[in-house]
Amino acid sequence: MRAAPAAASEGPLAMICGGGSLPIAVAEQVASRGRPVVLFPLRGAADDLPVEPYRHHWLHVGQIGKFLRLARAEGCRDVVLIGALVRPSIWQVHPDLVGLSYLPAVLKAFRGGDNHLLSNMGKLLEGEGFRLLGAHEVAPQILAPAGTLGRVQPSERDRADIAFALDYLRAAGPFDIGQAVVVAGRHILAVEAAEGTDAMLARVAEMRANGRVRAAAGTGLLVKAPKPQQDRRFDLPSIGPRTVEGVVRAGLAGIAVIAGETIMAEPAELVAQADHAGIFVVGEPPVRS
Amino acid sequence: MRAAPAAASEGPLAMICGGGSLPIAVAEQVASRGRPVVLFPLRGAADDLPVEPYRHHWLHVGQIGKFLRLARAEGCRDVVLIGALVRPSIWQVHPDLVGLSYLPAVLKAFRGGDNHLLSNMGKLLEGEGFRLLGAHEVAPQILAPAGTLGRVQPSERDRADIAFALDYLRAAGPFDIGQAVVVAGRHILAVEAAEGTDAMLARVAEMRANGRVRAAAGTGLLVKAPKPQQDRRFDLPSIGPRTVEGVVRAGLAGIAVIAGETIMAEPAELVAQADHAGIFVVGEPPVRS
Repeated sequence: MRAAPAAASEGPLAMICGGGSLPIAVAEQVASRGRPVVLFPLRGAADDLPVEPYRHHWLHVGQIGKFLRLARAEGCRDVVLIGALVRPSIWQVHPDLVGLSYLPAVLKAFRGGDNHLLSNMGKLLEGEGFRLLGAHEVAPQILAPAGTLGRVQPSERDRADIAFALDYLRAAGPFDIGQAVVVAGRHILAVEAAEGTDAMLARVAEMRANGRVRAAAGTGLLVKAPKPQQDRRFDLPSIGPRTVEGVVRAGLAGIAVIAGETIMAEPAELVAQADHAGIFVVGEPPVRS
Repeated sequence: MRAAPAAASEGPLAMICGGGSLPIAVAEQVASRGRPVVLFPLRGAADDLPVEPYRHHWLHVGQIGKFLRLARAEGCRDVVLIGALVRPSIWQVHPDLVGLSYLPAVLKAFRGGDNHLLSNMGKLLEGEGFRLLGAHEVAPQILAPAGTLGRVQPSERDRADIAFALDYLRAAGPFDIGQAVVVAGRHILAVEAAEGTDAMLARVAEMRANGRVRAAAGTGLLVKAPKPQQDRRFDLPSIGPRTVEGVVRAGLAGIAVIAGETIMAEPAELVAQADHAGIFVVGEPPVRS
């Protein structure tokens, strides 16, 4: 574990939260290190988040003025964006006056890939005097370590598939495409683009059920890696217990991620589930091109 | 249209047929040029094929001995493999004695990507004294021509997306991955791997319906291209009226393929449907790396 610079003098951390299990996992880690957090859960994305134990203010997407005012009043300077956020329909956006002034920039960002969207959000906040941090900077324990995480080890054949998958992801990275691929026997079964990892894994399960994929059950694996040019402050790949469930349903042998560049939601439960199902979870060293 | 070397002296053409509309479209073209065809439809894949107007012999996958005997008895030297063929389960393969002797080679091929499978089938037939031809060699009119096929033209923005998609497909090609991608505004929405083009288009339609893809309806396009190292004799990308239907349902603006390297099933109906739906279909010049 790296040392983190958390200190009360940095003031409370503002967390703009989407859905899923990551926001609370990060909030717990930050709070346990003695730094207060203020959650800003987004309506429509984070409705199920158990925010009650924390100071929090609900936001609609687009209420940038409200966020800036409340975050300043709370004494926050550092901001983390975290959690799943389906791109909202323009009709679900409730811009306030400040939000309206940023709307052209946000809409422009929405037309690019994910990287553009997130970079523009980062620039916007920094232009208002905030500092945008990555979840891994405020909660370093949340990153996948190097090596095998549970009791199951990848085979030699799995290792060859991992290398093949990482080669593909490196080649596809410049196209700002999703961060995940399913490979079995050096044969790419599925590539993630806009649909997300869970939907891709469901597709593999379906292709196995309907006979389109014939690789033996218990072979093949999921590999996730950041895009080469991705801003790692706010857009790291993540895995969690739900990823393990999807991998089990897809009949795969395991999961490989990049150590130090992958967020693990509920790591204890993730590893317990993987061990129980007999699938491996391994952190590979980062490869720089 | 290129001149084709069809002549009665070449003897009848043996066509091993999977499913879909391509086998009969090719058979019609070959027969209309005066060359007899003998169809070998595969049980489980080509069950719905209207084979009655042609000489034909049903085969199970694996009946290689039966095929060799019948094709020789029919005086065939040239063989075309054409049509959709889901990789059969080992339990659906009915090897005869000759088939059994090839089984290890076929099983080995099944473990690689599509290219390996098809190359090995080609080697097998050539080792038995047959000549394996591509459908486009016996029915050149079936290839997509260069330029716009119907009345609708791609916009400048569509042209930029086509170039972006072709760049991606070139980068992904060495990984023996599917031949198609959906792009909107230089953002990759979906990549085809084992699921096939129809399933990928259905996914884009679904992502548009559930709000995961926000690109305006009528933007974005499907691009299909052969893999760089693909043996074009028996594995060209194909489009047909069903592709147009899928593109319309996915809310895309059009289809781009590689001229001279893409098979068109039922081209007249394809173009009529595309014109009616207001989508473009364009043949791009091949790019060699």
